[in-house]
Amino acid sequence: MNFLDLLNAQIDKSNSLLCVGLDPDVNKLPEQFQNTPNQLFEFNKAIIDATHNLVCAFKPNSAYYEAHGPEGVVQLRDTISYIHEAYPGIPVILDAKRADIGNTNDQYATFVFDYLGSDAVTLHPYLGREALEPFFARKEKGLIILCRTSNPGAGEFQDLIVDGKTVYSHVASQVSQSWDTLGNCSLVVGATYPKELEEVRAIVGPDMPFLMPGVGAQGGDIKAAVEAGIGANKRGLVINSARGVIFASSGSDFAEAARKAATETRDEINKYR
Amino acid sequence: MNFLDLLNAQIDKSNSLLCVGLDPDVNKLPEQFQNTPNQLFEFNKAIIDATHNLVCAFKPNSAYYEAHGPEGVVQLRDTISYIHEAYPGIPVILDAKRADIGNTNDQYATFVFDYLGSDAVTLHPYLGREALEPFFARKEKGLIILCRTSNPGAGEFQDLIVDGKTVYSHVASQVSQSWDTLGNCSLVVGATYPKELEEVRAIVGPDMPFLMPGVGAQGGDIKAAVEAGIGANKRGLVINSARGVIFASSGSDFAEAARKAATETRDEINKYR
Repeated sequence: MNFLDLLNAQIDKSNSLLCVGLDPDVNKLPEQFQNTPNQLFEFNKAIIDATHNLVCAFKPNSAYYEAHGPEGVVQLRDTISYIHEAYPGIPVILDAKRADIGNTNDQYATFVFDYLGSDAVTLHPYLGREALEPFFARKEKGLIILCRTSNPGAGEFQDLIVDGKTVYSHVASQVSQSWDTLGNCSLVVGATYPKELEEVRAIVGPDMPFLMPGVGAQGGDIKAAVEAGIGANKRGLVINSARGVIFASSGSDFAEAARKAATETRDEINKYR
Repeated sequence: MNFLDLLNAQIDKSNSLLCVGLDPDVNKLPEQFQNTPNQLFEFNKAIIDATHNLVCAFKPNSAYYEAHGPEGVVQLRDTISYIHEAYPGIPVILDAKRADIGNTNDQYATFVFDYLGSDAVTLHPYLGREALEPFFARKEKGLIILCRTSNPGAGEFQDLIVDGKTVYSHVASQVSQSWDTLGNCSLVVGATYPKELEEVRAIVGPDMPFLMPGVGAQGGDIKAAVEAGIGANKRGLVINSARGVIFASSGSDFAEAARKAATETRDEINKYR
């Protein structure tokens, strides 16, 4: 099954557009995971068990694992395997923000899809479509291209004006009109910028899903973001919250608190779908 | 010592602008490294021993190691450690092409500098300067920003025109005029585009070094590239060749062939300095 079908099936099954970001910053882990073996994996497992039926996807960010060297990479793979084995049908998006020239991307695709077993990956657009061919060759995988990111300084290059349109609008047009021949492309558009989100939705039409970081800790408003970005059949958004869910409590009730935060976020999103 | 001083000292010591790219594609390793333990590290070690006094830097590309999972990551760290221990003074550039939002970049900086021990890293510009703060906080490290890449499709977004100037020119201006307050920034400009290289040199002035991929297997012309890009004091270019050096022979004479290819490339570069 390709990524878009997998995603839509899980959205319908969970009645949720919430994606939980598995970004286990060791400095914020509950005390019971401090200085324990496989702490990232064990923490993730508890979060996954607590939230699996509330999400349309899980999104580990590779950086939080790479920071621990090989032990972190193993725990990232184990986290993805655990999701696939314990809860089949939930897509895993690897937030890795990769992109190099073609023969190098071939190696990254091996890491992301063959070693880690991800269903989708985030990619930088800067080198253009040609360089990303090894990712496009993985026809069943989701390719999620950075368009308008959620960070405060996102506009420095993304908002430059080319022929009366922003650079991020050009990225949205190119991906939608010329890259997405297989229907497996998606865009990253931050919840922190609802006006830009609305504009990108108008450019690409109702069917392309957006990965939307920026709610929760980053402060994006759910009502504004959902109303601006919602796609066909009340789908089309994968709304990521990491810190707001996984670190809802730093005490021994962290899993229960994560489940509560995920439920509230899902329900808040559904109010505006 | 900061990256630029380290680099310039090594350029002077080796009388070389050649950087050898340590991209050990397993499908191309000489037969003696097929199916042997630590094959990436052992191959690299032989290449490093054969070429160390001919280079201004070594540049492993992270993708070729990540493709092997945790065992690859260990061999990447061991490769960098080996260079620093056996040949102190040679800077190691990690070609990782990272960039995410700020708190995530903090984790990538931990991987790249603390775990791996790199002296410099390549970064995507798309999220802007603000997001890269955790890299800028590593004041002694080199930050090498993608400007005009060497791949055939580089122009898709990089050549879009903003206020009469290309996007890559805007990246060059911003990095030079506003990002590089500590003198530790550099740009990636491909040898395959000498006209663009000349333009970027004119924008940033003579002192900023360029990491220049694209000679060797990618077909960039050394004479044109050196004449277009050379900086102050006949420095300012770090000219990378990976496949053209490390896979000069696939036989048991691979190290000798790599040394010969590196010598020829260094001398060819020096003819036009």
